[in-house]
Amino acid sequence: MFILFSRKQKLLVFFLPQLPAGNLQLTLYQYKTCPFCSKVRAFLDYHGLPYEIVEVNPIMRKEIKFSSYRKVPILLADAGSPLQLNDSSVIISAIKTYLISKRNSLEEIVSFYPPMKTVTEQGKEVLEYGNKYWLMLDEKETKRVYPVKEVRVEEMQWRKWADDWLVHLISPNVYRTPKEALASFDYIVREGKFGTVEGFFAKYLGAIAMFFISKRLKKRHHLRDDVREDLYEAVDKWVKAIGKNRLFMGGSQPNLADLAVYGVLRVMEGLEAFDDMMVHTKIQPWYQRMEEAIQRAAA
Amino acid sequence: MFILFSRKQKLLVFFLPQLPAGNLQLTLYQYKTCPFCSKVRAFLDYHGLPYEIVEVNPIMRKEIKFSSYRKVPILLADAGSPLQLNDSSVIISAIKTYLISKRNSLEEIVSFYPPMKTVTEQGKEVLEYGNKYWLMLDEKETKRVYPVKEVRVEEMQWRKWADDWLVHLISPNVYRTPKEALASFDYIVREGKFGTVEGFFAKYLGAIAMFFISKRLKKRHHLRDDVREDLYEAVDKWVKAIGKNRLFMGGSQPNLADLAVYGVLRVMEGLEAFDDMMVHTKIQPWYQRMEEAIQRAAA
Repeated sequence: MFILFSRKQKLLVFFLPQLPAGNLQLTLYQYKTCPFCSKVRAFLDYHGLPYEIVEVNPIMRKEIKFSSYRKVPILLADAGSPLQLNDSSVIISAIKTYLISKRNSLEEIVSFYPPMKTVTEQGKEVLEYGNKYWLMLDEKETKRVYPVKEVRVEEMQWRKWADDWLVHLISPNVYRTPKEALASFDYIVREGKFGTVEGFFAKYLGAIAMFFISKRLKKRHHLRDDVREDLYEAVDKWVKAIGKNRLFMGGSQPNLADLAVYGVLRVMEGLEAFDDMMVHTKIQPWYQRMEEAIQRAAA
Repeated sequence: MFILFSRKQKLLVFFLPQLPAGNLQLTLYQYKTCPFCSKVRAFLDYHGLPYEIVEVNPIMRKEIKFSSYRKVPILLADAGSPLQLNDSSVIISAIKTYLISKRNSLEEIVSFYPPMKTVTEQGKEVLEYGNKYWLMLDEKETKRVYPVKEVRVEEMQWRKWADDWLVHLISPNVYRTPKEALASFDYIVREGKFGTVEGFFAKYLGAIAMFFISKRLKKRHHLRDDVREDLYEAVDKWVKAIGKNRLFMGGSQPNLADLAVYGVLRVMEGLEAFDDMMVHTKIQPWYQRMEEAIQRAAA
């Protein structure tokens, strides 16, 4: 819920989407520490949408046995009839479209983001969702949501950047050294859903495995020897893109790119990589504004 | 131009896009035998849009020196001010949107398909265009163009299939044997823009090089040992998707998926792979209907 603090904020309330008065029941299947899940939570929280969380056990994953799509996040949405939404960016684009425009049912909106099988350069079959960074708005709605036209494309590009580039910097950074890998897994096991014995093994074996896997990821994504440098560079590039004349990329309020970048970076909170990032980049003022904006919205 | 032959076809004329009365000057930079260029020509011809062709010399490419985007096709469109459109599917989606809906300028429409830098799994930087299979229509236009709602997503999926899968079957098939490779290059040099000496060398060196490169492509895309089998399978899958109750995927008229598949397959005309495909698959009746539809439209 949005609370009015000042005269200035009274104006801002008009730009917030209408809240559907309890007519949208949401259940999020997630791993708490996964950046894609964190992105969805940041989005839902900021829009004041209540949702149930089902924490998925990452070893057995029996909580999502009902689904042929085997990744998290999955969002079950019930706006009359139950509907399964897959892929974090599809979830965000579809729900955002639904909040802005009541012309179509959520089911219809989701059908505008079709899964499309495709084959990567190396012949791996993958699922890609069409239009996934595009809100399905008519002209009037577009003018309302994007009074500055260029921001629509900018938002799209940075959302994709968050998914395709920024997320890949997380693992190499939080598993950089054996000590960091152990701290990360301690955090993952504490926050995630693990049995007691499972958790013990996951912590130590997971830390060892991810330490080595993260070296492979580092190589695959052509990161520098000191992966922090890539993280700092990415984060400062983001800050520079916002520039000095905007509080957020969305202007006076976060847009979907702000929420995506925040959601991804947030999973490092409490870890060495996060503290280093705060010290060595210019992200802090924006990051703090994001925290406040989400707290206000969820209050 | 569309010519009325019968009463039945009189009805169909309403579904054809309005032809802009000469207010859209188009110049296509192409290699004649490239499938992506052929796709664009099939689209422009079917829609009765006149255009100039600039055949690009594939060795020096000085005809597209003006452009920082270094691939063909490139379409220069002048609907008041000159505008460069890159990527065959963006060209097709943007021009099609423009033909249906006069709400936005072509420049605005093109901005809805933004280039987005992304990094592939192997760390290669590539340019991807957002929304590239999506027509930017409002509700009324959507209902007019897609009276059967499901066809919109179907069209999108098969257009992507043509770009991501079908095109990859062409090279391995037309350079399958040394003899076929030579015949293909004879055709490419004859149809393309080459100097005399250049053409001679291109033909023999090109044939040898592509014979070997096509083996690598075959491996990369996990094709079968006999690449014809993959071609036959793909083509029959397409025919099956249309089914028995439609002349085209678009119903009684080709849609953008029909034009894409036709455009890709057409580059094999006159080569052994094409004749084999006609004999060993069920494509012929549809292919012939496509030829006729385009001939009628361009007449």
